[in-house]
Amino acid sequence: MMAASAWTMDGWMSTRLARVEAALDAWMTDAPVPTRGWGAPTALVDAMRYAVLDGGKRLRPLLTMAAFEALSPAAEPSSEGAALRAACAVELIHAYSLVHDDMPCMDNDVLRRGKPTVHVKFGEAGALLAGDALQALAFELLTPDDGSMPLAMQGLLCGVLARAAGSTGMAGGQAIDLSSVGFRLDEPALRHMHELKTGALLHASVMLGAVCGQATAPEKRALSDYGHALGLAFQVVDDVLDVTADSAALGKTAGKDADNDKPTYVSILGLEASRRMAKDLLAQAHAALQASGLANTVALAGLANLVVQRSH
Amino acid sequence: MMAASAWTMDGWMSTRLARVEAALDAWMTDAPVPTRGWGAPTALVDAMRYAVLDGGKRLRPLLTMAAFEALSPAAEPSSEGAALRAACAVELIHAYSLVHDDMPCMDNDVLRRGKPTVHVKFGEAGALLAGDALQALAFELLTPDDGSMPLAMQGLLCGVLARAAGSTGMAGGQAIDLSSVGFRLDEPALRHMHELKTGALLHASVMLGAVCGQATAPEKRALSDYGHALGLAFQVVDDVLDVTADSAALGKTAGKDADNDKPTYVSILGLEASRRMAKDLLAQAHAALQASGLANTVALAGLANLVVQRSH
Repeated sequence: MMAASAWTMDGWMSTRLARVEAALDAWMTDAPVPTRGWGAPTALVDAMRYAVLDGGKRLRPLLTMAAFEALSPAAEPSSEGAALRAACAVELIHAYSLVHDDMPCMDNDVLRRGKPTVHVKFGEAGALLAGDALQALAFELLTPDDGSMPLAMQGLLCGVLARAAGSTGMAGGQAIDLSSVGFRLDEPALRHMHELKTGALLHASVMLGAVCGQATAPEKRALSDYGHALGLAFQVVDDVLDVTADSAALGKTAGKDADNDKPTYVSILGLEASRRMAKDLLAQAHAALQASGLANTVALAGLANLVVQRSH
Repeated sequence: MMAASAWTMDGWMSTRLARVEAALDAWMTDAPVPTRGWGAPTALVDAMRYAVLDGGKRLRPLLTMAAFEALSPAAEPSSEGAALRAACAVELIHAYSLVHDDMPCMDNDVLRRGKPTVHVKFGEAGALLAGDALQALAFELLTPDDGSMPLAMQGLLCGVLARAAGSTGMAGGQAIDLSSVGFRLDEPALRHMHELKTGALLHASVMLGAVCGQATAPEKRALSDYGHALGLAFQVVDDVLDVTADSAALGKTAGKDADNDKPTYVSILGLEASRRMAKDLLAQAHAALQASGLANTVALAGLANLVVQRSH
């Protein structure tokens, strides 16, 4: 017998990324829906595809798949399909938020991942609608009507994603962000903003995988702790990179938050304390995995390392 | 024993409207979420409430409740709660679409229901975020995590609503609408646009009630026929009113579609043929109710009459 090749983080990521890209590509289409005889209009699908495909680190889908696999080393194919749908759904929510964030009335960004932003390419109305349709598509992915996914699981997944996306999650965090420009937030207020703005969806990415893998209550608690630590670490590192990396590495304009007088961890705690905080959060994430009792957490651990040690 | 007072459409509507208004009011709040310790930011909730409360005919929620009641004359309280949630969820999707539609990059409307539009009152970024959060809130309402609603029903409802809202439903119709200004559509193309833009959500309003009332497959087919006829009738009447009613009665700018060179039923078929079409569709809706075999369709029949005979 041939020995199986050694597990590597790069190998794990590249196979999962390929699956996610292929699924996203297949689900955004203007092909007619068999039961209805029409498809989505081509212009809208083009804008949605431009917003989602061929770019992005796919951190959220990778978290969903890693959490799922931590629970189900030998999962049955049907729940693997559910995990892939959930992984893509959370990425669609993330993608829609970037499309709307980049619009002139919000951050007015013209470059994203080194390409013109969606409103530059498709007009503001096109970007607005593409974002709206991507949010709906996330919930469409979670609710196939072909019997391929238990209805109760669909309900649970929609609930986790809706709460993470809505007014007490991502959209709420963006509203706080909007109203905080030029204000001096203290650390608890900044943490609260980020827990909603980016933390809620990163946390949900993990919890969607937990639902698909049918985690027990204690497993869910441990994965939730991991998700919280990772979500906050992500933002602290973002703030550090905003002042230390250059625009080419980031694929977006560096120093933008500082220039816009936005409160950041670096502006409140300073650079060194922010770096220490990121390391502490990484240790917390690892400790949560340890406490979970799950055997197969190597991908989750690797993703936490990547979040804190990334250069862009 | 006192005789129960006679059933009237007005009486039915006013009790249901009161329930819907109270529920929408209660669900949009900045009160802290017990399990998390924080609520939605006040500024965002203010914009969401402004967009939704104190205005609107609430046709979609009334359709959901009428369809539910046609199936469950003596419903158990728990599914009545589900129907109320579904009724409010579909109204939130409708409300978010109006907020985004009114924005400068879309229709650039400054008045809605006789009040300044959301972006006039809260700024464009505030309107964008409020719309996004309202879409998410619709799915939050459908997925309570307190055990009050069967998870499988949650999954079904989310699926119906997501498909009606997304790229093969409402958002898709708006994209076709955007790209059709100044083009001469024929009747099938116009019908297709409206089936997506307004028809899909009106149809879904009925089907959400059907899911809550656990309709059989033949009952679902009949209610689906009713929903299709009513959805198209609604748009034909809208086009007629755009040229025959004045702005005060409409609560918005009359003649706007004609001025904007948008294709309408009146511009394609003429006024009289459009009126005849609306009457034919009303007859189709009534016939579908007849064919449903359901005993308690008086509210659904009354709503169809209102849609076709309204003056605004």
